[in-house]
Amino acid sequence: MALPISPLAPKTHAVPPAIAGVRFATAEAGIRYKGRTDVLLAVFDPGTTVAGVLTRSLCPSAAIDWCRANLPGGTARALVVNSGNANAFTGLKGKQSVELTAQIAARAVGCAPSEIFLASTGVIGEPLDATKFDGVLEGLAGTLVAEPWIDPARAIMTTDTFPKLAEATVEIDGVAISIAGIAKGSGMIAPDMATMLSFVFTDAPIAAPVLQALVARHNQTSFNAITVDSDTSTSDTLLAFATGKAAIAPIDSLSDPRAETFGDALKTVLFDLAMQVVRDGEGASKFVTVTVTGAQSDDSAAKIARAIADSPLVKTAIAGEDANWGRVVMAVGKAGQPADRDRLTIAFGDIVVARNGERAPDYSEDAASAYMKGDELTLKVDIGLGDGKATLYTCDLTHGYIDINGSYRS
Amino acid sequence: MALPISPLAPKTHAVPPAIAGVRFATAEAGIRYKGRTDVLLAVFDPGTTVAGVLTRSLCPSAAIDWCRANLPGGTARALVVNSGNANAFTGLKGKQSVELTAQIAARAVGCAPSEIFLASTGVIGEPLDATKFDGVLEGLAGTLVAEPWIDPARAIMTTDTFPKLAEATVEIDGVAISIAGIAKGSGMIAPDMATMLSFVFTDAPIAAPVLQALVARHNQTSFNAITVDSDTSTSDTLLAFATGKAAIAPIDSLSDPRAETFGDALKTVLFDLAMQVVRDGEGASKFVTVTVTGAQSDDSAAKIARAIADSPLVKTAIAGEDANWGRVVMAVGKAGQPADRDRLTIAFGDIVVARNGERAPDYSEDAASAYMKGDELTLKVDIGLGDGKATLYTCDLTHGYIDINGSYRS
Repeated sequence: MALPISPLAPKTHAVPPAIAGVRFATAEAGIRYKGRTDVLLAVFDPGTTVAGVLTRSLCPSAAIDWCRANLPGGTARALVVNSGNANAFTGLKGKQSVELTAQIAARAVGCAPSEIFLASTGVIGEPLDATKFDGVLEGLAGTLVAEPWIDPARAIMTTDTFPKLAEATVEIDGVAISIAGIAKGSGMIAPDMATMLSFVFTDAPIAAPVLQALVARHNQTSFNAITVDSDTSTSDTLLAFATGKAAIAPIDSLSDPRAETFGDALKTVLFDLAMQVVRDGEGASKFVTVTVTGAQSDDSAAKIARAIADSPLVKTAIAGEDANWGRVVMAVGKAGQPADRDRLTIAFGDIVVARNGERAPDYSEDAASAYMKGDELTLKVDIGLGDGKATLYTCDLTHGYIDINGSYRS
Repeated sequence: MALPISPLAPKTHAVPPAIAGVRFATAEAGIRYKGRTDVLLAVFDPGTTVAGVLTRSLCPSAAIDWCRANLPGGTARALVVNSGNANAFTGLKGKQSVELTAQIAARAVGCAPSEIFLASTGVIGEPLDATKFDGVLEGLAGTLVAEPWIDPARAIMTTDTFPKLAEATVEIDGVAISIAGIAKGSGMIAPDMATMLSFVFTDAPIAAPVLQALVARHNQTSFNAITVDSDTSTSDTLLAFATGKAAIAPIDSLSDPRAETFGDALKTVLFDLAMQVVRDGEGASKFVTVTVTGAQSDDSAAKIARAIADSPLVKTAIAGEDANWGRVVMAVGKAGQPADRDRLTIAFGDIVVARNGERAPDYSEDAASAYMKGDELTLKVDIGLGDGKATLYTCDLTHGYIDINGSYRS
């Protein structure tokens, strides 16, 4: 199924720089797709640290199990990603497939299997024949390059309609530190770690525990702040690799102020990638920022924002360009969080549609209708109870979502 | 918008008998719809008891507030229902509208306003002009009849494509006790009290606390066991009225074995109505029973079943007639309940598609595909951990849902 490029796609894509100590290659292994790359091998110089956040699904994929087991080691020599088959819910075969893939990659790269990180995305429940990687990975190991990043970004796509790239450069101790990131994901994007796959690479010399803390922190306001359809993938993976090639003293502690500086740059990249995932939400025609303020706590605000952003009725109203605040009230009411109907204020953009629990006296349906025709919308809800606030990013629910997901396997 | 009748609609509708002590009339008040009835007045003889279950939304409609305040009184003389406007999120105006409606009805019927029960369904956020009821309710009070029940069933419809009726008769102490029920609802059908409106009428002499206990109990396995779109209405209302006209001794205690007998008949009516609501799920093309067994507890099983039944990816796969068990695994994984991927067994109907965490060796895609073409499907998941079980009823997610909800207000 060839999908048209999302109308919300960025007009141009980032062109991240080469990252010293990272080289990669892609191949057509024919796992599921024909005529496109579907395998990525990224190889890291010795000394590369790794950190990551993985799905909270209690039925994770075999690759997730593998990464969870090896992340505590803190070092990585290679990343192997395939698209087309998620190797999830494949039982013992899945575990064997992951082990075999790691062995093949370790042999090709010359390292221990535990330093190989793996991710798979695509259909769930189909065994992944790892012998397909035999020969392929060795071949890739002989053709490694440092750019362009669009190649790995393309190789990891499934129902994505555009490749997702981001970059940031930050000066630390007078040295330019680079971060390159790629991501894929457009459906099954949901609570608690909301992407299928994202990989970030930097030349910063940063200890694995520090990297882990920064990735976890900034994941909260990026990938954990988006939702397309409320469905949580079995394969959600965010991994960050730091080669340490930049000529600055190692960042070994979170209390080192340089960790904060680096973290800000990392945050930029993660946020950029997460927004691209929403912009490629399956069938999306509107990009929607949901801001909740005045809740009893930030956590309460986040739960209310998620109830709004996940509501099929709110999402279909937005698709229909209908400023239907009644459905927003419904979603606030179902969130199970402290709320007082008669204190709610609801605005679409700067147009306050409801205040103190009823339609705003100065509300103009025409102005609201005109606003709803835009493809970048902000929905603001003030609960009127406290200082808690949260922002979530989502998209509308359209016929396109049904088209894509009513026929994915066939 | 004229909607075609749901393909899942029952071929015939029930024709409940007249209930002694209950009379009703309907009218075209022009609240929103033209050329159809939109107001129901049901009047009960003195001595009628009432019980009910109301939405758990924290932003309930004004009518919900009214019913919640008056249910403890335990007696009812009339029910007024309007469709087209939910009188929800209408602030002080909503409260005044409810009070005025109750006053008008009380005057027409000759009782205290606190014995009037109210329900409104339709658009949220639009003030409801209660003066429209002036004259109308007096007029209705002069034209009361005891049947046919299809008239009130029609008057309370909104996006429903067919009227919903159910009946049961049970013999107690040699006397035939009758129950008549009506319901409306097709979207915003979700967790924790999943219907818009349902009203049940009986001639049984049953004390309000006993009726309350039975309604609450059997609501659990009927309206609380269905979901269309995971959205919880601000107006969900289930009310039961018992006129006491049947010539048997009053049922004053739950320990009276006749309470159980009556409860079973009540359960039949509530379950029948709840299934009709699912069958009229907005855009529904498949009726789906989700059964979860082997969970750690019944509550855990119910949460897993709900995660499956609410998942847009599972629902779109079913719409696409795709036995996509991978998405079922995903939904089990996101439910946050104890589960072990490698113990899961998943079946569509009698076709076991996955066992022990992977595709069943004897699985036939052809057989599964043929099964999925049916319009009544059962999805069975065994968690393999304990004895907990639950059954939920839902429908698929189709283009029809987007059509209906992308343009509801306009």
